[in-house]
Amino acid sequence: MAKQKKGQKAAGGGLREQLLVPAGEVDLTTYDTRATTGFSGTKDDGKLALENLGPEVSDWQERLFAEGRTGGERSILLVLQGMDTSGKGGVIRHGAGLMDPQGLKITSFKAPTPAEKRRGFLWRIRQAVPEHGMIGIFDRSHYEDVLIARVRELVTPNVWNRRYDQINEFEAELTASGVTIVKCYLHISADEQKARLEERLSDPTKYWKYNPGDVDERKLWPDYMEAYQAAIERCNTPDAPWYVIPSDRKWYRNWAVTTILLETLKELNPEWPAADFDVETEKKRLAAT
Amino acid sequence: MAKQKKGQKAAGGGLREQLLVPAGEVDLTTYDTRATTGFSGTKDDGKLALENLGPEVSDWQERLFAEGRTGGERSILLVLQGMDTSGKGGVIRHGAGLMDPQGLKITSFKAPTPAEKRRGFLWRIRQAVPEHGMIGIFDRSHYEDVLIARVRELVTPNVWNRRYDQINEFEAELTASGVTIVKCYLHISADEQKARLEERLSDPTKYWKYNPGDVDERKLWPDYMEAYQAAIERCNTPDAPWYVIPSDRKWYRNWAVTTILLETLKELNPEWPAADFDVETEKKRLAAT
Repeated sequence: MAKQKKGQKAAGGGLREQLLVPAGEVDLTTYDTRATTGFSGTKDDGKLALENLGPEVSDWQERLFAEGRTGGERSILLVLQGMDTSGKGGVIRHGAGLMDPQGLKITSFKAPTPAEKRRGFLWRIRQAVPEHGMIGIFDRSHYEDVLIARVRELVTPNVWNRRYDQINEFEAELTASGVTIVKCYLHISADEQKARLEERLSDPTKYWKYNPGDVDERKLWPDYMEAYQAAIERCNTPDAPWYVIPSDRKWYRNWAVTTILLETLKELNPEWPAADFDVETEKKRLAAT
Repeated sequence: MAKQKKGQKAAGGGLREQLLVPAGEVDLTTYDTRATTGFSGTKDDGKLALENLGPEVSDWQERLFAEGRTGGERSILLVLQGMDTSGKGGVIRHGAGLMDPQGLKITSFKAPTPAEKRRGFLWRIRQAVPEHGMIGIFDRSHYEDVLIARVRELVTPNVWNRRYDQINEFEAELTASGVTIVKCYLHISADEQKARLEERLSDPTKYWKYNPGDVDERKLWPDYMEAYQAAIERCNTPDAPWYVIPSDRKWYRNWAVTTILLETLKELNPEWPAADFDVETEKKRLAAT
């Protein structure tokens, strides 16, 4: 499924290599939404494995944060996309929730306001790019501008068609300025979505998450799949690759995205910053107070 | 220590009542930095008690968040102030870290930039006020404008002197617009600070947290205590009260601030939003897809 093809950057082994989308044509029907690629164990094992990632991912996060506080210019941007109920919020709550919230910059993108629209679709995205040392997380993103915008015909085909290249240029610009981009498509089946929407309608503590518009969007499922395929295919660049995360099992999804984040942090390998002062001198100054 | 005085709002019982600063003159030397007010148990008990707050505080946070997503206009703003090493970051990491990062808006205030300064000291603070349903956390705040600004004479006495009233007006405005303000002063002793700075100088993974300027600030300890006393005394209003958190024991500090947040959430008592659609109709519409 995730065979490396020529021209696609190797992801450094590990889970990323297994979930990376190979360059070339994308057919989402060939991706199993219930897979647990790279993990052998039960649901309970998976939940425990996620918890156990906490200390390590949090330690690496602090290193990156420290680097950013001392002149480093790197950051990570995790882009989360997926159909309603695919679990973008769940990944943030259970995966990102393992980390220090001080080092996270989470942005949830809703329909753009008129003020945002007139500045071009990438303007508000740029505002949300993580600062040095931070892990930025996008709950939806500029990809909505080639997903809902395309499916709902919010702009002409000519406009959305040009956006793929605009996105690639934008992401290349970010990469060049020190942002490591990780794009995860949370892949669920239409049946699983139905079950999750039913759950929301059966539990009064979840009514607020339900919107009648969700059913209307659901009816356009095939159109969305086509739009996702195009987005993944046309914006799957070596520097800003797409991962397809099987997401019918929530525990696997949370573990997988967090593992990908951890692998990304380790590859960046931020080191504890050296002192930019003389330690012995400072010890003496402090002792004298 | 935290006896209720006339004119000061009752904090609804619990830990808040015990740590609330009574109206009137403030003498920080009468507040024990090593106290464990309201908690009986060991350090390990305290750490466990904090962990155990997780599910409850996180549930209430989600209710507030849900309320904000469905038209509610309330939010919480936790202001953290304290000398270097007092643990503002620690409270966020270990206390706020128990919650869903999606519902947190954390802002760390550094020295203002020229662009910020020319807009008045409250401008950048207003930018960071939490959205409806969010818990905002300020790591330092507008209080620096009557703390370091006063101690370091960054502005004339006439200017900082007027700021207390300006802050009170600003906070009253926020309160009126639905923001519940909780101000915590993390109270440590000068000796404890010395020990923590020594620790930073002895551990290469902590060098990045150390700044030679910290020792210079430390030399002004009495001036800072005076400035803190004035700030707490003059800006201790019924709607935006100050709590003094004994902070020489990190575990107690984290538990205490988190408990205060929990009590605040419970007092707001946000309820799960009712459905603004007909549940049965939606179930049928969904079933038909």
